Amino acid sequence: MKKLSTEPYKGTRDFYPEDMRLQNYIFNIMKSVVEKYGYQEYTASIMEESDLYRAKTGEEIVNEQTYSFIDRGGRDVTLRPEMTPTVARMVANKRKELVFPVRWYSIPNCFRYERPQRGRLREFWQLNVDLLGTESLFGDSEMIQMSYEIMIKFGANPENFTIKLNNRKLMNELFNDFLKLDEEKSYRLAKLIDKKAKISEEEFTKQAVNLVGDGIDLLASFLKAKNLEELPEIIKVSKNVQELKSVINTLNSQNIKNCVFDPTLMRGFDYYTGIVFEVFDLNPINMRSLFGGGRYDNLVDLFGVDSVPAVGFGMGDVTIQDYLETYNLIPKLKTTTYITICTIDELVIPKALEFATIFRKNGLGVVIDYTDKKVGQKIKNAERDGSVYVLCLGEEETKNNTYILKKLSDFSEKKFTEKEIINQISKAFLSI
Amino acid sequence: MKKLSTEPYKGTRDFYPEDMRLQNYIFNIMKSVVEKYGYQEYTASIMEESDLYRAKTGEEIVNEQTYSFIDRGGRDVTLRPEMTPTVARMVANKRKELVFPVRWYSIPNCFRYERPQRGRLREFWQLNVDLLGTESLFGDSEMIQMSYEIMIKFGANPENFTIKLNNRKLMNELFNDFLKLDEEKSYRLAKLIDKKAKISEEEFTKQAVNLVGDGIDLLASFLKAKNLEELPEIIKVSKNVQELKSVINTLNSQNIKNCVFDPTLMRGFDYYTGIVFEVFDLNPINMRSLFGGGRYDNLVDLFGVDSVPAVGFGMGDVTIQDYLETYNLIPKLKTTTYITICTIDELVIPKALEFATIFRKNGLGVVIDYTDKKVGQKIKNAERDGSVYVLCLGEEETKNNTYILKKLSDFSEKKFTEKEIINQISKAFLSI
Repeated sequence: MKKLSTEPYKGTRDFYPEDMRLQNYIFNIMKSVVEKYGYQEYTASIMEESDLYRAKTGEEIVNEQTYSFIDRGGRDVTLRPEMTPTVARMVANKRKELVFPVRWYSIPNCFRYERPQRGRLREFWQLNVDLLGTESLFGDSEMIQMSYEIMIKFGANPENFTIKLNNRKLMNELFNDFLKLDEEKSYRLAKLIDKKAKISEEEFTKQAVNLVGDGIDLLASFLKAKNLEELPEIIKVSKNVQELKSVINTLNSQNIKNCVFDPTLMRGFDYYTGIVFEVFDLNPINMRSLFGGGRYDNLVDLFGVDSVPAVGFGMGDVTIQDYLETYNLIPKLKTTTYITICTIDELVIPKALEFATIFRKNGLGVVIDYTDKKVGQKIKNAERDGSVYVLCLGEEETKNNTYILKKLSDFSEKKFTEKEIINQISKAFLSI
Repeated sequence: MKKLSTEPYKGTRDFYPEDMRLQNYIFNIMKSVVEKYGYQEYTASIMEESDLYRAKTGEEIVNEQTYSFIDRGGRDVTLRPEMTPTVARMVANKRKELVFPVRWYSIPNCFRYERPQRGRLREFWQLNVDLLGTESLFGDSEMIQMSYEIMIKFGANPENFTIKLNNRKLMNELFNDFLKLDEEKSYRLAKLIDKKAKISEEEFTKQAVNLVGDGIDLLASFLKAKNLEELPEIIKVSKNVQELKSVINTLNSQNIKNCVFDPTLMRGFDYYTGIVFEVFDLNPINMRSLFGGGRYDNLVDLFGVDSVPAVGFGMGDVTIQDYLETYNLIPKLKTTTYITICTIDELVIPKALEFATIFRKNGLGVVIDYTDKKVGQKIKNAERDGSVYVLCLGEEETKNNTYILKKLSDFSEKKFTEKEIINQISKAFLSI
C-alpha cells in the first residue's frame, strides 16, 4: 500500500498540545477583553453559499482566493474567507427578533487560497468583534479601545504600535465633491491609494494624475497630512473630519495616545462606509499592519431587510502570534496535569485508580502511567507532560501504607499514609 | 441587485449567542472531565488531502459522504469527515519525538454530506479523546470511564443509558477460526451484523446462512448471548473474551455498573482492532446509540512508521444536545454581562466611560448603552442581555453625585456617590 503523507495540507497548521496551549492563550486574552465589554460569542458554519461573498468581499479575494466547490447536491459552496458577511447574514435573518444594538464576537477559522508565507496561511483564525444597531461614534471608539486593550493585555508596549484612523466618508467626499471623480475612477483611486506604500512615489503620481488631472495638488496635500490639523483648509471644515476628531478625542480621554489620522489608510474590503482603523506594528525591522476594522452601515441591507448600522474589527491569530514572538511576549504555558501516578507493577493499578478518583474529585488533573516502562523513565515523562507531582505506587508502598509524593520542580519528597492523602489532599500537596 | 439568502448552508447551524452558550456549556463539560484525566488539547485544519481517508475510514463515508474538491493548485482536498485519521497522521509525523503514551483530545468540527435529519447534520462537532502508545487494557477502561463520567457530569442518570462492549478480535476469531470465512465474507458478515437491528430476523438469517452455511447455529448462539457467561462454551475460553471480562471488571470496580457485553456491536469504522464500545440511550421512545469508540492499533502504521497502539472515542455535539433536551438536562446559562450603564444624554458619556473602565478593571463585564433609546427601553434591553445591574447616568446624577444602581432580578435600588462606587465596587454591588 502507498505510504500516506504525514504533513498537514499545504498552508495549514497542525496544533500539537504545546501549539494549542499558545492558541488557547491568545484566544483567552481576546475573549477576556471583549467579554468585559459585554460582547457575546456566536459562530456559524465554515461553509456558506458562494453568493454571500460576490457582493462585497472584494474582487481579488472572490476571484482568486476563495475555496469554492459544488457540493454533491449542486450547491455552490465557499469556505468563508472572512466572517463579516456571515455576521451580516445572521443579523439579517433575525432582524425583527434581535434587540439592537447587539454586541457579538467570534473566533472563526477562515480560508484563503494564497501562497503561504510569513504571516499568511491558507487557514487562519480571526477574532471578529461587531457592534450592530447603532450609528454612534462611541461605537467606533469602543472598537478601537478594545483593540488597544487586547494589545496591552498581550503585554505590548504602546510605544511599539500605533493605531491609524481614516474615514471612508471623508475619502468619498474628497473623490466625489472635491476631485469630481465618477464611481469607477473613485474606485480605482481608492485601490491606488491602498497600495501607495508598495509602489514608488513617481509611479503613484503618474497613475494618480491619470485619474484626477488638475486635482493632483489637492490630492497630494491631502495625502501628506500627518494629522487632521495639516489637512488642506477647505477639507478641514468637513463634518467627516469632525467625526475623526471626535473619535480621537474619546480615545485620548481613555488614555489611548497612540492613535493618529492617516489619509492613506483605505482597508481592503469594499463594504466599509465610515471610520476605518488599523493597528500598526512600529518595529523598524518589519513595520506592518497587524489588524483593523471599521464601520459598515450598508452590509445588512443586501439581504433585503432594513438597514443595520454596524462597526467591527478582525484580528488574526497568525499575525498576532508573530507579533508576540517578535517582542518576546509569549509566557510559559502549563498543562492541566497536576499529579502523575506511576504504577510499579500491574497488581497495584486498582489502588492507583482509587487514588486517581479521589484526586480528581478534588479537582486535580491526574495521569496514571500504567505502562511497563521503568520508573525512572515514567518520572521523566511526567516531567515532560508538565506534571507537578509524581506518586509512585508499588506493592511495597501499599503493603507498608507509605506513599511518597515527589515534587518535580525540586525533587523534594514527602511521605504520606493513605488516610493522610485522602484527608488532606489539596492542602498537603500544595505545602510540600 | 438579487436579494441574498439569510439562511445558513443546508444542514449547518448558525450559533446565535444563546446557542453558543449551550455549545460552550457542552464543550466545557467535556473538557473539564478529560483534562482531569491528563488529556491535552490539540487540533488541525479541517482540510486534509483526500488520500488520508481512502485507506480506513469506510467506503460509504468516502464514496458518498465526503466534501471533496480540487483546490486551485490541483490538490485533492477533503473536509475531514472524522478526526481519527488526522490524529494518526499527527502522531506518525512526530513518531520519534513524542514521548508515549500521549493523551490527546480535540473538539473538531467534521463534515459529511448527508440528508439532514434529527441527530444528523452536515457539520457537527465531535469530542475526540485518544490515548496513543500503550496496549494496556486499562487504557480501554479509561476511555469508557471518561465517557461515563461525562454523561454523569451532564446530569444523566446511569439507569437511562448503557455502555455496550464488544471485541473486534473476538469477532475476527469467530469469523476466521470458528466460521472459517475468508476475508471478503468476514467483511460482509461484519456489515450484516452491524445492520442487524435495522432488518428483520428472517432477512438477517437468510443473508447470514448465505455467508456462513453450517456455521449458522454457532453464529446464532453467539449473537444471542446477553452477557459473557451466555457465550457458547467453545468461545467462552477465548483470550479475547478474557479481555472483555477484564475491562468490565475494572469498570465495575470504579462503580460503573451499566456496562454490558453486546455480541452484535460492530462500530462503523474499518480501523478498529480490539475492544469497541458504544454508549446507548435507553429511552423507550427513541433507543439509540449516542457515541462510542474503540481500539485501533494499526492506523498509525499506514504512514510507514512503527506501530503505535491506540484507543479512543468520539462524542458528537448534535446527539448529546438532543439527549440533554430529551432528559431536560440543559441548565439556564448566563451571559458575562454584569452591569449595563444607560446614558440619559450624550454629555454624560465620558463619565460613563470612566465608570466602565473602573468596573472592568475590577473584573466585571460592562455594557454602555449610549443609544438614543428611552431609559425604560434600555433597561428592558439590559435585562434581555442578561445584565445583573443597571446604572442610569444623566446630568442630574453627575451634578448631585448620586448614582442609582438597580438590581434587575427584583428591581431593588441603592444610591451611591461616585467615591463609594469606586471604593467598594465589588462588595457594594454584591450586597444590594
